[in-house]
Amino acid sequence: MTKMPALSACHSDPATYPPGIAFMDGQYLPISEAKISVLDNGFLHSDATYDVVHVWKGAFFRLDDHLDRFFSGMEKLHMSIPFGRAEVIEILHNCVALSGLEDAYVEFICTRGTSPTFSRDPRDAVNRFIAFAIPFGSVANPEQMSRGLHAAITEFVRIPPSSVDPTVKNYHWLDLVKGLYAAYAQGAETAILLDANGNIAEGPGFNVFAVKDGKISTPKSGVLMGITRQTIFDLCAELQITCAAHDLAPSELRAADEVFVTSTAGGVMPVTKIDETSIGTGSVGPLTNEITEAYWRMHENDRFRQAIRYP
Amino acid sequence: MTKMPALSACHSDPATYPPGIAFMDGQYLPISEAKISVLDNGFLHSDATYDVVHVWKGAFFRLDDHLDRFFSGMEKLHMSIPFGRAEVIEILHNCVALSGLEDAYVEFICTRGTSPTFSRDPRDAVNRFIAFAIPFGSVANPEQMSRGLHAAITEFVRIPPSSVDPTVKNYHWLDLVKGLYAAYAQGAETAILLDANGNIAEGPGFNVFAVKDGKISTPKSGVLMGITRQTIFDLCAELQITCAAHDLAPSELRAADEVFVTSTAGGVMPVTKIDETSIGTGSVGPLTNEITEAYWRMHENDRFRQAIRYP
Repeated sequence: MTKMPALSACHSDPATYPPGIAFMDGQYLPISEAKISVLDNGFLHSDATYDVVHVWKGAFFRLDDHLDRFFSGMEKLHMSIPFGRAEVIEILHNCVALSGLEDAYVEFICTRGTSPTFSRDPRDAVNRFIAFAIPFGSVANPEQMSRGLHAAITEFVRIPPSSVDPTVKNYHWLDLVKGLYAAYAQGAETAILLDANGNIAEGPGFNVFAVKDGKISTPKSGVLMGITRQTIFDLCAELQITCAAHDLAPSELRAADEVFVTSTAGGVMPVTKIDETSIGTGSVGPLTNEITEAYWRMHENDRFRQAIRYP
Repeated sequence: MTKMPALSACHSDPATYPPGIAFMDGQYLPISEAKISVLDNGFLHSDATYDVVHVWKGAFFRLDDHLDRFFSGMEKLHMSIPFGRAEVIEILHNCVALSGLEDAYVEFICTRGTSPTFSRDPRDAVNRFIAFAIPFGSVANPEQMSRGLHAAITEFVRIPPSSVDPTVKNYHWLDLVKGLYAAYAQGAETAILLDANGNIAEGPGFNVFAVKDGKISTPKSGVLMGITRQTIFDLCAELQITCAAHDLAPSELRAADEVFVTSTAGGVMPVTKIDETSIGTGSVGPLTNEITEAYWRMHENDRFRQAIRYP
């Protein structure tokens, strides 16, 4: 008779997690307890949509825009949750308030879930809503913020819109991850992927902008319609800077006076080197600085902020 | 002062799960306890590879081939686990033996994991190995097996190899899920996606084969190099049936004498209707039947089976 290993009653997790609070199944939990079944189709088929809003100095920034995108994404994926918009807002407030975080990264997710009958038909699955607040994170660290990121334009093609709708914020990142490893291999810190036509698409978690002769441009399609990207359009309108979305060739990016990338995770972040080419003067440019300052100033505008109700 | 909801110490999960046993972090667990952190990059970035081997009548089928693909996928994704091949085999045996299942679906996964420092750099993450055994499942139910599946060829393009390497078995399924919903909308039961050139690619979890004038063909590239697909090549060689991989136009599939799909989840499964077109006579064809029988007969061949060491 073969000797069998013992069966444990429950899982003991050796990993460490950042501080934070999650919500799932009606419960508020320490982030270390927020786990999904390995059978959830959100994991097994990356069948999920999500959004991330940030909290800065105790207030959400552009929460309404993130919620619009999240609810629209769920609809496009034929998903539904037992919470309306007002209830989701309350849950997000509670996660942040319970965490005590003043600056936070707040993610909310709808996964396909699992089917009570174990059917493979996604229509039989019970969709699941999860939210969590953890400390604010950034694509660029403080050193990279001051000297500018070093990016590589990789040969990898961002998953095209004909396959996966980029307006539904999703977790399909293997192309971005392969791009990152290719970038690391050539000494860069992050990656920029191309679209199927060889134009600039986006990077891991960010949109890309080029500044040339005082005008700003960013890829038009096949990219996430980032909320921070939209904020750049809004700020440029206010600051009377021309900003347009159109196809952007890698050569145009390399020949730009300034390059920056945008993400909820960090805001506006300068890029001063692409592959072996220094961008402009090689240091963070004046327009990038002007927009970065305007971006953080905008966080004080009551039109975009929603204060957390801390206990 | 705002009244705050209570914080629970641990998660109480209302979902039901099938019977089965999982392995993670050195522990064998009931499948209902097998959960990953919502912060694991295997979930948040679908940054994971996996494989599924089936157990039939108490024995693994072609386990070595599945292991080859899994270890090769991890290498391509720059992942590593603290287990060698022999240890993984032992874990898989134990999961099945502890589950007591005679016919099982055995999945093993490597996720990017999380970083102890909460860094966004995938190189800092501790990769995580998970395995589980649950009851054998099939793409087609018994009724569909006997009358043939009704598939729809959808307009969706399978994520191209220039974005995500299909030889690394992965969870990027949103294109397949959208295809399924499009298929359901037109009354079909499953979906077949195209490649970027408009040729047949694959469906949700299966490869596609067409039979015409006694010869068999299947798409050559841009698809999962399925182990069951390989088994069809092997069986055809044995049965002296011509079987070739090449571009397959949707019109060729519709005009085929027989169509079948293959997956570890179900084996060889007939398709008798595509969109509104009946395939051949409209019932399961003789070559499909011959190959299906040969496929299950092959499970008795000691070259491909590895008996589970039940307690």
